[in-house]
Amino acid sequence: MNETKNRINQNNLHRAAPIGVFDSGVGGLTVVREIMRQIPNENIIYFGDTARVPYGSKSQETVTRFSEQIVRFLMTFQVKTIVVACNTASAYALDTLEKNLDIPIIGVVKPGAKMAAEVTRNGRIGVIATEATIGSQIYTDYIRELNKNVTIYGKACPLLVPLVEEGLLEDPVTDEIARRYLTELIDINIDTLILGCTHYPLIRSTLGRIMGNGVTLVNPAYETARELRNMLAEMDLLNLEPPRLGGNRYQFYVSDKAEKFVTFANSIIKYGILSARTIPIEQY
Amino acid sequence: MNETKNRINQNNLHRAAPIGVFDSGVGGLTVVREIMRQIPNENIIYFGDTARVPYGSKSQETVTRFSEQIVRFLMTFQVKTIVVACNTASAYALDTLEKNLDIPIIGVVKPGAKMAAEVTRNGRIGVIATEATIGSQIYTDYIRELNKNVTIYGKACPLLVPLVEEGLLEDPVTDEIARRYLTELIDINIDTLILGCTHYPLIRSTLGRIMGNGVTLVNPAYETARELRNMLAEMDLLNLEPPRLGGNRYQFYVSDKAEKFVTFANSIIKYGILSARTIPIEQY
Repeated sequence: MNETKNRINQNNLHRAAPIGVFDSGVGGLTVVREIMRQIPNENIIYFGDTARVPYGSKSQETVTRFSEQIVRFLMTFQVKTIVVACNTASAYALDTLEKNLDIPIIGVVKPGAKMAAEVTRNGRIGVIATEATIGSQIYTDYIRELNKNVTIYGKACPLLVPLVEEGLLEDPVTDEIARRYLTELIDINIDTLILGCTHYPLIRSTLGRIMGNGVTLVNPAYETARELRNMLAEMDLLNLEPPRLGGNRYQFYVSDKAEKFVTFANSIIKYGILSARTIPIEQY
Repeated sequence: MNETKNRINQNNLHRAAPIGVFDSGVGGLTVVREIMRQIPNENIIYFGDTARVPYGSKSQETVTRFSEQIVRFLMTFQVKTIVVACNTASAYALDTLEKNLDIPIIGVVKPGAKMAAEVTRNGRIGVIATEATIGSQIYTDYIRELNKNVTIYGKACPLLVPLVEEGLLEDPVTDEIARRYLTELIDINIDTLILGCTHYPLIRSTLGRIMGNGVTLVNPAYETARELRNMLAEMDLLNLEPPRLGGNRYQFYVSDKAEKFVTFANSIIKYGILSARTIPIEQY
């Protein structure tokens, strides 16, 4: 491989530069996991805002301010692209972030919305997400841009994140709470359900069992990694260098309590997260 | 009443100056409610850090940094005293805050610990609280300073706050989760249970039903208001002016989304919170 060829593409960005990924906390690791699987050559800088988590119950102004600080932090690594691996931040802040950046940035909402619009057969799509994401109506807006003949039913599920974070992945309480949230979506006869919060893929089997076989579950984390790969390929930005042994290709940063993050992260990503560093995000 | 006499006491503090009260969010309103009941003449400035809530799963360093910003904000109102109406902030930050202040500051932990040490008969005291408060061992330390012959059993109950915030005050799910947390305290045969998080008095009847009649529930919010009244009386700092009609004696500030705070606040305090203002707390 020609080193110079690999280094710079026509966009003046380094192919070997890392991808910046951020989330309010640990949920975005389900997106990182998909990126690792689908484009294993890439280097990743992950930031989880564990000092200010959660975002899903907070306002657009606050989530945007926090997201802007994180983007400034990620830019110090000369990242070639940024992935907003949080549905709430994608819903609230993506447009503002995009305006002020000269590198590509993608969120998790659009890829998930696109897949849902494609796979629905009866035109009834359910979205489960945080209060903020549901309140923003962003899934509805994106899906209806692509397909006018669908109806979207949003349902905020605020208790699912704490239940997942407490590790109650297979538990009668999580089952009961999920059933309460999903009942109206079942009654409406949706055939497609978007898991509109990065924690939800971790209880995918519970959600699938409640919804039944007739309902397709859409995981925006998976769709986002696919979209990211396509975008990098189109822009000639895929990293062509194979991973080096002993290289520090995945770096994890948090705003609070790195140890706790590492424990949770290692339960999601089997790759082995060696460490995470705490940084003072308010200063960015 | 002599106006000059009311204004300044020997500590050079204004008797009619407000009391500053803060919490990570809405939980501290259970403390405000007790202050309103027990010393109704006082003016109160409340701050809830709704942009960065919760504190209970975060580190000492982060909680202390947040608390210091809030104290700087409260000091702009020339408060005569500060009440840390959050168990986690009391556990993690009170000592540091105290060192840098020339007005009295009290937390909710010491008054709760004191009452528990007094009321226990069999010397077995349970404490339920956030991860942070339990991890700090602060209740254990305070109680054992007062009474060496007791054993303290701490139990972190991270799901109770989200359940309360979702309004599931009387609900089989809250009952089931509370039972799981409390079972080991029942087995250990405690006779006193400290509700070591400001949200827990809102599910006091559920907790009491599970623990049974033989167990005394200690509400640090109530004990703190009592301690505050005694301290102000000793320091000659009680407000002697009766409330004025139309006066703005209770002021509420938050770091995010004032509307949502007001809804929750009005469900806790029947007094009628007219409004809350959002302020950029990171700038303090």
